[in-house]
Amino acid sequence: MRGESYPSDELNRRKPVSLPQVKAFVFDVFGTVVDWRGGVAREAAPFLRRHGATGAQPEAFADAWRNRYVPAMRKVISGERPFEQLDVLHRENLLDVLPEFGIDQNAIASEEIDELNLAWHRLDPWPDSVTGLQRLKARHIIAPLSNGNIRLMVDMAKRAGLPWDAILGAEVARMYKPDPQAYLRAAEVLMLKPEELCLVAAHNDDLAAARKCGLRTAFVARPYERGPGQTKDTKAESDWDVVANDMNALADAVGA
Amino acid sequence: MRGESYPSDELNRRKPVSLPQVKAFVFDVFGTVVDWRGGVAREAAPFLRRHGATGAQPEAFADAWRNRYVPAMRKVISGERPFEQLDVLHRENLLDVLPEFGIDQNAIASEEIDELNLAWHRLDPWPDSVTGLQRLKARHIIAPLSNGNIRLMVDMAKRAGLPWDAILGAEVARMYKPDPQAYLRAAEVLMLKPEELCLVAAHNDDLAAARKCGLRTAFVARPYERGPGQTKDTKAESDWDVVANDMNALADAVGA
Repeated sequence: MRGESYPSDELNRRKPVSLPQVKAFVFDVFGTVVDWRGGVAREAAPFLRRHGATGAQPEAFADAWRNRYVPAMRKVISGERPFEQLDVLHRENLLDVLPEFGIDQNAIASEEIDELNLAWHRLDPWPDSVTGLQRLKARHIIAPLSNGNIRLMVDMAKRAGLPWDAILGAEVARMYKPDPQAYLRAAEVLMLKPEELCLVAAHNDDLAAARKCGLRTAFVARPYERGPGQTKDTKAESDWDVVANDMNALADAVGA
Repeated sequence: MRGESYPSDELNRRKPVSLPQVKAFVFDVFGTVVDWRGGVAREAAPFLRRHGATGAQPEAFADAWRNRYVPAMRKVISGERPFEQLDVLHRENLLDVLPEFGIDQNAIASEEIDELNLAWHRLDPWPDSVTGLQRLKARHIIAPLSNGNIRLMVDMAKRAGLPWDAILGAEVARMYKPDPQAYLRAAEVLMLKPEELCLVAAHNDDLAAARKCGLRTAFVARPYERGPGQTKDTKAESDWDVVANDMNALADAVGA
């Protein structure tokens, strides 16, 4: 299964891979397991209407909010600010994005901001996520290795039926991906060697950072995560251990 | 439901209590959710036979091993030693208990010690635990708030079918119960006020420590946790918010 670049639609023509060493699959969540863009847009739409931004596209609002995600985490990774839960960063980013859509935060009750911020707790899984996770769970530990905080992941999992064995990620490591500590701390608490973990992600840069830490890597293609015009992460850009079209194809590929 | 002391067999004569503020039930695990004595004895029995301790009672071995648990954690709580996963403390305690049963640790392969140490990962739930937890999970977050480490709790949950929403406890707090930090960190990562958490435990001292931190408290009676001659924790010794005979009675009492 190694090579230079695998268009994801070629996977099913290849024979199943096994990763016999892997005891745990750990998952990027936003974009890989759930549809953040659709979920945030769904909750942003009535908010934008209520506040007079009638011409705004809810998806553009979701994109603008999400675009502030990486820069906010970089400040934690660089040490410019101490670790904060993602909910805190999300809320700051939300306030930051409102003026772009002509909305004055001072005209909005704090509770309404809090409520919209919880949109990230209520994201829907991609159609294949729950069945794929259930299959992978039968013989492996499965856990999010997300930058989302524990409560966010718990709320999402209860609503969506994501059958995690544990909630790992940034808040357990108190450090955000792609800092190595985020990946290595997951291995540590699972008492596994890095090569006994496989990161599942739709993002090549996340997989590259995990590989540098010694984890195995599985790319699951989500070419519409950023909508029909997506240009980044439309396909695997390295020789990841597994490349799959969706979570069930990943389960097939590893014999789960 | 408040009073001086409630023998647990009186619960079902009282009308259901509700704890409307409580959003999460967090659980002591060893003794409250699972039968550590029976499980450790089951795995100790062939070990003792193999190593010539034919006259030894496996239950006495389990008790002797368990009796070293609190003193080992006290050294972490007091700051005498840094935080270590419970698996590490369990293994030290196991080596410590072998001479009492006439067994020379130097005559045993390290892997065999490791394997017996994993008995704590393979404990059986009490008969009511899984159904009770499933009921409580429907409208509340449920998580262990145990001194067991994350991997131990994950292995146990997968084997026993314990449907946790997250794994909390000592390793998330990096501090053991009954230190306040163990309880307060669980509230913090769940983004709840202490009074929105209810600790469920079969041990009065655990509940007392949780109450001091502001948590609600539920006593679930496990009068045979330490075998037929148990004298401690046979009944509620304070006016805990709920007193129940088992996990289903707790679900009844809180209207789950």
